[in-house]
Amino acid sequence: MSALEIADTTVAGPEEALALAVAQALRGTRGANPLVGAIITASDGRVLASGFHRGRGTAHAEVEALAGFNRFKASNATSRIDPADTTLWITLEPCDHTGTTGPCTEAILASGIRTVRYAVADPTGPDGGGAARLRSAGLDVAQVDAEQVCGSGAADLNRRWMLARDSGRPFVTAHLAQSLDGRVAAADGTSQWITGPESRRHAHRVRSRVDAIVVGTGTVLADNPRLTARDEDGHDLPRQPVPVVQGRRAVPAGAALRGGASWLHVQSHEPQLVLDQLNTGYLAEGTTVSTAWPHGGTSLGHVLIEGGPTVLSSWMGAGLVDELFLYQAPLVLGSGPSGLDLPQHTTLSHALRLTLDAAENGAISRLGDDVLLHYAAP
Amino acid sequence: MSALEIADTTVAGPEEALALAVAQALRGTRGANPLVGAIITASDGRVLASGFHRGRGTAHAEVEALAGFNRFKASNATSRIDPADTTLWITLEPCDHTGTTGPCTEAILASGIRTVRYAVADPTGPDGGGAARLRSAGLDVAQVDAEQVCGSGAADLNRRWMLARDSGRPFVTAHLAQSLDGRVAAADGTSQWITGPESRRHAHRVRSRVDAIVVGTGTVLADNPRLTARDEDGHDLPRQPVPVVQGRRAVPAGAALRGGASWLHVQSHEPQLVLDQLNTGYLAEGTTVSTAWPHGGTSLGHVLIEGGPTVLSSWMGAGLVDELFLYQAPLVLGSGPSGLDLPQHTTLSHALRLTLDAAENGAISRLGDDVLLHYAAP
Repeated sequence: MSALEIADTTVAGPEEALALAVAQALRGTRGANPLVGAIITASDGRVLASGFHRGRGTAHAEVEALAGFNRFKASNATSRIDPADTTLWITLEPCDHTGTTGPCTEAILASGIRTVRYAVADPTGPDGGGAARLRSAGLDVAQVDAEQVCGSGAADLNRRWMLARDSGRPFVTAHLAQSLDGRVAAADGTSQWITGPESRRHAHRVRSRVDAIVVGTGTVLADNPRLTARDEDGHDLPRQPVPVVQGRRAVPAGAALRGGASWLHVQSHEPQLVLDQLNTGYLAEGTTVSTAWPHGGTSLGHVLIEGGPTVLSSWMGAGLVDELFLYQAPLVLGSGPSGLDLPQHTTLSHALRLTLDAAENGAISRLGDDVLLHYAAP
Repeated sequence: MSALEIADTTVAGPEEALALAVAQALRGTRGANPLVGAIITASDGRVLASGFHRGRGTAHAEVEALAGFNRFKASNATSRIDPADTTLWITLEPCDHTGTTGPCTEAILASGIRTVRYAVADPTGPDGGGAARLRSAGLDVAQVDAEQVCGSGAADLNRRWMLARDSGRPFVTAHLAQSLDGRVAAADGTSQWITGPESRRHAHRVRSRVDAIVVGTGTVLADNPRLTARDEDGHDLPRQPVPVVQGRRAVPAGAALRGGASWLHVQSHEPQLVLDQLNTGYLAEGTTVSTAWPHGGTSLGHVLIEGGPTVLSSWMGAGLVDELFLYQAPLVLGSGPSGLDLPQHTTLSHALRLTLDAAENGAISRLGDDVLLHYAAP
């Protein structure tokens, strides 16, 4: 069974149905929202439609699957599938909440589907658990057996995302461009460019997904970055992250990142303190904020740790990096600083163990002459 | 056109025919012999058979293609293809030399094929150029146009291998097992195991391909390795490399590598001097050799640089590493030594640029939780 192609697929039971929904979910990108996949099956197990969540502001997985189901019905009008004879399988309990999209419960009720199976319960999430709502409307709604959930991989899909949410903090992505010997600059500090244009383009797309982008004062002083998300022609993408500077030194009056609509400076080296600022919008002493800072009082869903090595290492060492994009160039620098420096980790058993992340259609990809490795914290 | 599947493939011209032969060649492993691929086409461009060279001691690519052609003829007996109507395309000029296998020229002459096209000339190689021999037997033999050779990638297949041969030295492979932050041990020296069992198994298969395996005295003193090629149960594989120790310190009387049939100690830090010893078998002052050293007076075809970092860095810095297998574990060590340390390279323009190597069916593969990146020196 192909992970992506559902045409002419038939599932034999709940574990297989969920595995297919998980494969759909993994086509999405990690971030402010969880990865979710859904499929709709006929009574004989034939897969009629599928969907996955592409990221904040886009349709939820079950809504995408329902749209696919409508297309299926339209193109198979003569076979007259009754929605009441189908089952909707979802990797996560559907929401009952109006956010940037309407509640999935309403869409499910409107579809005529009467049987819903989901893997992971989410009654306490900000989007509210929809199972009770659907049940009260008379639908047959059940959470699938734990063993089948684990067998399908559904339990692992959003482990780290849920940890972040339960900790009341945003999902944290980091990225790092290094030589194959793990260095981010030569001994004399030269570092433009270690990786190639394809890697930089990917990094800008990641920037455009996040709410905030964190750099250290050292990076501001050394590179004076704008920290905008740009396309390959250098034009700003429609969605821009808010630059956040971490560290005690002042942000120079002429710093390029001051040119954006808003920015924040948290005068601390402590990732948790930076998170608290981003999360609460409470402006502690030592926090400089631009007048246009848009997030006061609201929490952010997705933060990107841009660097430099000191900042990235502090977040990694604090266990606050949920996923890492590692761009590795086919270069041996031979000397110069590492991208990750955790002197307190002195022996092999102290090593931080990540896992290759199957999201975004696979952990390993080639970007021009570089390799992109996508790691998730376990 | 799939790179590997030749069934029902038709080629439109020389560049396409060679590209298919190149794709075959890239299925082989680099080492003592060059990568070579071959295909046999009918007069209408239909591909009837293909072959590639799997490594020393196995059939040459053209002989494998001819065997495939015989199987094709046997299973298509009614269609009666006349060998004289077919063309043999080879990425490298066929040999006219009896080595561990017979000369390819004889096999071609025996096949009845009358038209031979090859990409890269090899009249000066140890296996002798076979084009003249075939021509003198009346065959239509020609080297394909340089533009088509380059378009197909045939010119790049063995660039580095030819450089090694022209320098009168073996082909040099290195391997390196590191954390994702480019470290080979923790700060306290612990390093067993950074990579997982699948990576170690691959590394042992690489060991079993080579003639000699080079380590530094530091590795001998710290780890006391046997340096044998072993299967997953720990049993020695049939083919074993000769351990070579590089460095000034003495090899202890009880060193495990003394347990093998032969070994060599070259009391120098200079890769070129080590190569000279391996190449000529001339035992310079300062060279210790076991009584059973089998290679006196004959040159070695393939050498593996095992480590540690000082040894690997010295070979890399000297420009003497032809290919690198990089096993990268999903670990952040955070402190500890890098696998490659070239303090003389101080700025980005001094970086050594490798390329992802398409040989062995691709540059990037997953080995359990690790990633294997295969790099070639350009």
